[in-house]
Amino acid sequence: MKPFANLTLPEKEALRKSLQEEFDRVCEKNLKLNMARGKPGKEQLDLVSDILTVLSDPEDCVSDGLDVRNYGNLSGLPEAKNLFAEVLGCKPEQCFIGGSASLQLMYDLIAKAYTHGLQHSPRPWCREPVVKWLCPAPGYDRHFSISQSFGMELITVPMTVEGPDMDLVEDLVKDPTIKGMWCVPKYSNPQGIVYSKQIIDRIAALRPAAPDFTVVWDNAYCVHEVFGDYLPFPDILSLCAAEGNADMVYEFASTSKITFPGAGISVMAASEANQAYLQGIMKYQIISYDKVNQLRHVRFLKDKAHTLEVMAKHAEVLRPKFSCVLDTLEKEIKPLGLATWESPKGGYFVSVNTLPGLAKRTLELCAQAGVTMTAAGATYPYGKDPADSNIRIAPSYPGLDELRQAIEIFCLCLKLAALEQAR
Amino acid sequence: MKPFANLTLPEKEALRKSLQEEFDRVCEKNLKLNMARGKPGKEQLDLVSDILTVLSDPEDCVSDGLDVRNYGNLSGLPEAKNLFAEVLGCKPEQCFIGGSASLQLMYDLIAKAYTHGLQHSPRPWCREPVVKWLCPAPGYDRHFSISQSFGMELITVPMTVEGPDMDLVEDLVKDPTIKGMWCVPKYSNPQGIVYSKQIIDRIAALRPAAPDFTVVWDNAYCVHEVFGDYLPFPDILSLCAAEGNADMVYEFASTSKITFPGAGISVMAASEANQAYLQGIMKYQIISYDKVNQLRHVRFLKDKAHTLEVMAKHAEVLRPKFSCVLDTLEKEIKPLGLATWESPKGGYFVSVNTLPGLAKRTLELCAQAGVTMTAAGATYPYGKDPADSNIRIAPSYPGLDELRQAIEIFCLCLKLAALEQAR
Repeated sequence: MKPFANLTLPEKEALRKSLQEEFDRVCEKNLKLNMARGKPGKEQLDLVSDILTVLSDPEDCVSDGLDVRNYGNLSGLPEAKNLFAEVLGCKPEQCFIGGSASLQLMYDLIAKAYTHGLQHSPRPWCREPVVKWLCPAPGYDRHFSISQSFGMELITVPMTVEGPDMDLVEDLVKDPTIKGMWCVPKYSNPQGIVYSKQIIDRIAALRPAAPDFTVVWDNAYCVHEVFGDYLPFPDILSLCAAEGNADMVYEFASTSKITFPGAGISVMAASEANQAYLQGIMKYQIISYDKVNQLRHVRFLKDKAHTLEVMAKHAEVLRPKFSCVLDTLEKEIKPLGLATWESPKGGYFVSVNTLPGLAKRTLELCAQAGVTMTAAGATYPYGKDPADSNIRIAPSYPGLDELRQAIEIFCLCLKLAALEQAR
Repeated sequence: MKPFANLTLPEKEALRKSLQEEFDRVCEKNLKLNMARGKPGKEQLDLVSDILTVLSDPEDCVSDGLDVRNYGNLSGLPEAKNLFAEVLGCKPEQCFIGGSASLQLMYDLIAKAYTHGLQHSPRPWCREPVVKWLCPAPGYDRHFSISQSFGMELITVPMTVEGPDMDLVEDLVKDPTIKGMWCVPKYSNPQGIVYSKQIIDRIAALRPAAPDFTVVWDNAYCVHEVFGDYLPFPDILSLCAAEGNADMVYEFASTSKITFPGAGISVMAASEANQAYLQGIMKYQIISYDKVNQLRHVRFLKDKAHTLEVMAKHAEVLRPKFSCVLDTLEKEIKPLGLATWESPKGGYFVSVNTLPGLAKRTLELCAQAGVTMTAAGATYPYGKDPADSNIRIAPSYPGLDELRQAIEIFCLCLKLAALEQAR
């Protein structure tokens, strides 16, 4: 196949017609395929379902002498803190253990900044005339939505292949109304980019004007390799502390894609001073998150080494799915020059950048053909991708056969969109 | 024994000396007894521990065709909504299912009122110069703490034997800065008072000046009888709706004292319009609370009838403990005229009103003797009981032998405090 750019107009029109016919045939099948969300598939859920029965008797429900079935222990079980601390490389006393969603811990951090202020806030953020927030993009739509929900002004920071554009970030944080920044440092959502050590060091060494500048370090994919061995990753808490920024960063992780997405546990790691401050507010909100489930996770995952063994099993399921998507793009799209993409080594997504102006139309066509995808623009602040180019593909949920169909339909739709644009 | 008031001063001093000697002997035992928190005891936890294994295989994790292990369903499992709706008498579509703490749902309701405003709020409460809140007292310290944490002005409303003083409430709500009211309508914390139908009707028919006046209806003890049969209770949502106040009330309940306090599920019941409004904000906060645990509860509790059977077993454990406290008070304190109390038929507490000025000193003495109790004043806004009189006794956690020791020491301390005061 020739790159589309090299086709004559009549050649393009002839190709468009034949692809349109193919597309019409696909539509008649009334398919229902889904590549929208980073949901693990049933096979992945089944392989961790022994967690359901690791605690089966009252005697199993004791951790460090504590009956986990009863009230108490706001910040979570010491055993759960040990597990997360080992995985993240931080200290157990820096960990607060949450419920089934690290998103909730992130939301609540921002909510408390608004209602009460953070440790170094001159005032609660609801008393600030303007709050601005840095959004490396493409990024995670749910992060941007939290900021938007609180009326923040979202500032797009372009992603480079080794992380956010730090020249820009270093410049922007001189503005004291800029209060923080979203980061998914390992296998970023959606590109699967791993922040380089140099970028991480520059983040840790930021000199923001806002005394309560907040790096939300969403380490959602901390042990989520798909291809290759576990990639060790620096502990952002100690790096920030070494730069005199101990209280600037809050790290989040969860077991949502380790055990059950709908029933995992989560962690917020932060300096001891931040923990003391925040727990002083959180004690009014909750007595503790579900400690039985925390202990269930500790007994099932055991330690970092065993967690990595569990993740290796997930990777076995995910690898052919990622390969299917990447191979199909390589075969169908690359020769045509219609899009570029990273080849992620982990995480849950493949991020495709089409030629400008093709993303929305491609996904419209996908929807018509019965393939649900994350909305175009979702990976940018306010849902607006200025180039109308970025598309997030989530290969994890469908079975391999379905996925193959879905990605082929996606490629067909992208080609058709490109040829429509060329008319 | 004669009432202390009838003793001569020398008689009092002689008695004080002998009780002081008894007290010193108790202190030497270095006891560690706890009547502070409404925590179920181990026997209660054991009798519901079959819940640990009701879901043991992947096939068990399907509810209405939904794999509860995976992401999704913000407002919770339909089966869990059905269960709570049957228990509370409201509609399933009025239910939002939360995590291990209804306290968290209440806190988040107030937090969202502050950051975003409620459905009928002219503006977020953080933009109001003053927010005031009605606190029937004695009441639940954690309720008052939430209000206080948001900087509200707390207004004490005296409790009568059939609920809050409604003449006062009806008058107070004419003030538009008064935004809401805490209620524990059945077996109130701490007195165990059941609001009368007349009081409930007057609450439902309130005509508050604030368009977003919020009744927090914490039905924490909705199926928590200790003595006697299950007491049917009206559905506050439909009563409010019948009075044109459909959006004024938010009802809360949880399984904390039905299954595991540290690992239950909770509910916020509210009008469909309130649910639509709130879930429009909550969707940014969480993908869903733990659905595996929701299904575990549905499978274990089954329906209202079976839930009441479970509660009858809890009552069998609790009844001798409540009797022990009430009988000891009856025998040791009543003849002396040092205190009065309600005889609750359910809930988790016995609330004692000493003669004025004795509560703090009594609890100081208890602490010295190794008996931990809820702090004096905790049942009043700002932790300040104007009469220094109310003491909350929680009989559920200690074993019966320990409890007997603890309540006897409590009576000793109360007598001693009274005699010290008389010097």
